[in-house]
Amino acid sequence: MSKTGIEVQKEKDFSTWYQQVLTRSDMLEYYDISGCYVIRPLAYNIWQEIEKFFDAEIKKLGVEDAYFPMFVSQRVLEKEKAHIEGFAPEVAWVTKAGSSNLEEPIAIRPTSETVMYPYFAKWIRSHRDLPLKLNQWCNVVRWEFKNPRKYLYIVLEIAFCGCAPFLRTREFLWQEGHTAHLTKEEADVEVRQILELYRQVYEDLLAVPVIKGVKSEKEKFAGGLYTTTIEGFIPTTGRGIQAATSHCLGQNFSKMFDIVIEDPSVTDGTAKKINVWQNSWGLTTRTIGVMVMTHGDNRGLVLPPRVANLQVVVIPCGLTAKSKEQDRKKVEDKIQEVLTELKAVGIKVKADLRDNYTPAYKFNHWELRGTPVRLEIGPRDVSSNQVMGIRRDTFEKKPIPLSELTTRVPELLDTIQREMFERAKKTYDEHVKIVLKWDDFVPMLDAKNFVLIPWCETGQCEDQIKENSARKATQDEAEDERAPSMGAKSLCIPFDQPKNPPIVAGETKCVACGNDAKRYCLFGRSY
Amino acid sequence: MSKTGIEVQKEKDFSTWYQQVLTRSDMLEYYDISGCYVIRPLAYNIWQEIEKFFDAEIKKLGVEDAYFPMFVSQRVLEKEKAHIEGFAPEVAWVTKAGSSNLEEPIAIRPTSETVMYPYFAKWIRSHRDLPLKLNQWCNVVRWEFKNPRKYLYIVLEIAFCGCAPFLRTREFLWQEGHTAHLTKEEADVEVRQILELYRQVYEDLLAVPVIKGVKSEKEKFAGGLYTTTIEGFIPTTGRGIQAATSHCLGQNFSKMFDIVIEDPSVTDGTAKKINVWQNSWGLTTRTIGVMVMTHGDNRGLVLPPRVANLQVVVIPCGLTAKSKEQDRKKVEDKIQEVLTELKAVGIKVKADLRDNYTPAYKFNHWELRGTPVRLEIGPRDVSSNQVMGIRRDTFEKKPIPLSELTTRVPELLDTIQREMFERAKKTYDEHVKIVLKWDDFVPMLDAKNFVLIPWCETGQCEDQIKENSARKATQDEAEDERAPSMGAKSLCIPFDQPKNPPIVAGETKCVACGNDAKRYCLFGRSY
Repeated sequence: MSKTGIEVQKEKDFSTWYQQVLTRSDMLEYYDISGCYVIRPLAYNIWQEIEKFFDAEIKKLGVEDAYFPMFVSQRVLEKEKAHIEGFAPEVAWVTKAGSSNLEEPIAIRPTSETVMYPYFAKWIRSHRDLPLKLNQWCNVVRWEFKNPRKYLYIVLEIAFCGCAPFLRTREFLWQEGHTAHLTKEEADVEVRQILELYRQVYEDLLAVPVIKGVKSEKEKFAGGLYTTTIEGFIPTTGRGIQAATSHCLGQNFSKMFDIVIEDPSVTDGTAKKINVWQNSWGLTTRTIGVMVMTHGDNRGLVLPPRVANLQVVVIPCGLTAKSKEQDRKKVEDKIQEVLTELKAVGIKVKADLRDNYTPAYKFNHWELRGTPVRLEIGPRDVSSNQVMGIRRDTFEKKPIPLSELTTRVPELLDTIQREMFERAKKTYDEHVKIVLKWDDFVPMLDAKNFVLIPWCETGQCEDQIKENSARKATQDEAEDERAPSMGAKSLCIPFDQPKNPPIVAGETKCVACGNDAKRYCLFGRSY
Repeated sequence: MSKTGIEVQKEKDFSTWYQQVLTRSDMLEYYDISGCYVIRPLAYNIWQEIEKFFDAEIKKLGVEDAYFPMFVSQRVLEKEKAHIEGFAPEVAWVTKAGSSNLEEPIAIRPTSETVMYPYFAKWIRSHRDLPLKLNQWCNVVRWEFKNPRKYLYIVLEIAFCGCAPFLRTREFLWQEGHTAHLTKEEADVEVRQILELYRQVYEDLLAVPVIKGVKSEKEKFAGGLYTTTIEGFIPTTGRGIQAATSHCLGQNFSKMFDIVIEDPSVTDGTAKKINVWQNSWGLTTRTIGVMVMTHGDNRGLVLPPRVANLQVVVIPCGLTAKSKEQDRKKVEDKIQEVLTELKAVGIKVKADLRDNYTPAYKFNHWELRGTPVRLEIGPRDVSSNQVMGIRRDTFEKKPIPLSELTTRVPELLDTIQREMFERAKKTYDEHVKIVLKWDDFVPMLDAKNFVLIPWCETGQCEDQIKENSARKATQDEAEDERAPSMGAKSLCIPFDQPKNPPIVAGETKCVACGNDAKRYCLFGRSY
């Protein structure tokens, strides 16, 4: 039989904890092709909630949904060199159909820039066709080659640098938006609008705090002009995780794919062709993994009410084999009333009336699955016209008068949503440390923090920081040339810059190399 | 520049007409990998409307959405022999990732029975785990090998038997539902519930009539027990098209995948393992193609209001270069009022205010794209407090008083939706002919009809009918052993059987072979 509870502590064995939470809460199953996973309804529902919210928001911005093929010919895929260099090692190739070999191998999209942009070139004929804003919800494939097991079991702290459920998988679900604009200014505005929506998905839906900023040159999207990002933080391991990115591609792709219009500002017949400005932006099922890592505890999953497919579970209590039939009926009738009332105000609620399990078993069952609120109803509750309400996140227990159920339960769900975010935000904030001299850099990292330093923004310095903050590789890591560096990466240059001490041009020096600092940059070890 | 209107007649050159409607209305683009197509927003929106409706309905039946990997190992794919024999010639295989060859080739799902059912075996431990009802929205791949061009251009009447946009594509989008039940009775009920929802998608959303029935043994799903279907009809060609299917798989798959429980009706400790009963059911983007073929006319697409992403377009008229600024402003202000009012009652409306096109150009533009209603507003309309409303489906033109806009426009959309269905239904009904002697069979088919005959329901007779109703193959067809037969196939045994003349057991004979007839069966040439 399958195990029914979490057997390790989050703080002590994080990767085993993560696997147990996912599989035992019925969110996910491992699959016989490594790096692929089955997303079960409890988890898939979260993705659907994200889709519902985000799709409605981008439609307000004039984005339309479409669907492009998942297959790309080799010729088209390789059109933008810098771009394909970033993806080539991970591309899966179809070479056979039925029993026949294909004339040329066909790639499965790792992302769709090269699939879509030949059509942008066809559809965009004049400035009147701009902006063009398309989005698609689809699967993509990036065939990671590291052995996930090795990293999962042997090197705990880099547990998820190979494949790991949700965080890094060979096939994953995402939305990818692709837009074209007349001017850089217009493209810039949209990059930020989308990043703000991504922040809302994480902070408002998933109760997961993020920091907004721009990537360094080294960390930006292959082939793009600049990349904005929201960066998450997993306190248990002190590691960062890139939560979502919104790229301005500049005119690089429009030059490769010849997406041009006549300059509309010249009307005397001498107008030249100008290239459009493009953006692309994506959010993946990684969202689910970050949410689980942030909120889960040693009893299992903790779901924010806004994305829970079950927000409230009602459990009959205080009934034994000896209970009078009358008491049993009283409780069951009251439960039906409660269900009806709560459903009427839009609460996702059900009762666990299974007669072959004890209340205690059911408590564990729904705690493991993260249900935000449990309502207990026994004969004495019915008599005193109340139910007992228990929060999943804090285990706080309070009676709720039946007469106030339809206001108190929605309020309780709102409170849980808000407080889950506030707690996570406080923890994140406490782990972002301003560091002003290099000697403090590695100790702060080692204490599971992000560090924020005045930085020169050069690639050379970034490499040096990574090297100087790396720990000695274990034997396993040393054997694998693709093993991730233990050193700190630049995560982002936050939009919201520290004011104290301020960066003074020509005076403030880069903490790492001593050259002039430009802005504060967030560094950390990351997944 | 791209062409902007339809240049052929639907009745004279159906396949060119279909391609032109799809590409020129901005529904679809051809792709450089044949058999794959770009689904543009106008078409994808229809799929999203179908998804929204169907997903909400199946959730009411207790179905949950999930996502399983698109990759299947060879070993698992080949587990159910009868099933895989049906799909093997069309399976696409990934054999390479980056520059490395995979240890063993991995298939892309043609359907997910073999992907999902090992997990059904794991998750279903007792009758308390039943029913299990899962669904997923995803892409699947079936690599057709016929040369689409050949059939598209050379052999008009079988134009779409190779790949054709929406109807038959190498990658397509669908939903696939997979459920497990304790009893056959319960599975039977669900098969019909789902088929009824499919009927609603076609008839209520797409205004496309269908006939419900059960497939013959020969035409049922590979590996299943029986297949129910809804069958559509394309009057222009007189051909049938399978619109959607809902299968009872019986216990075949549960035996192969060992999905068993202890018989809950035996409680004395001697209970034996019994196999669960399974269903699977699917609806694809084919829906869109059938809708286009049914309703489109020689000016282009005709969209049923319920799935149109733009239901009403407002076009300023009667303004010329010489119009007074005052008139222009009056019309534009009125248009803004109309937009605000209609949006407030939930109508999907926009105005075409482009100043570089004439009203006539705009009429053609929106007619090609199938917009259900056009409202024209000119200075004289403003003065007389009315707009002119024009139906896309009938071109009927009527003034609408501005004061009644918010009731009359929704009513008009409802009328269009209803009448589009009624017209299509009348046409379908007129082309279903009861045939009582074989001599009438082929002439009726040749006159672009379906025929309904008392039938013996044997596979041998079905083969014979196909052979005897085949026309002489053209030279092109003869060259290709995979060329589709021109003969009639059994489409379905309709649930709604003709009552006149009734089938009398032991008396009524099969029209084709003379043996005892069981039920009426619908035969036709089909896509």
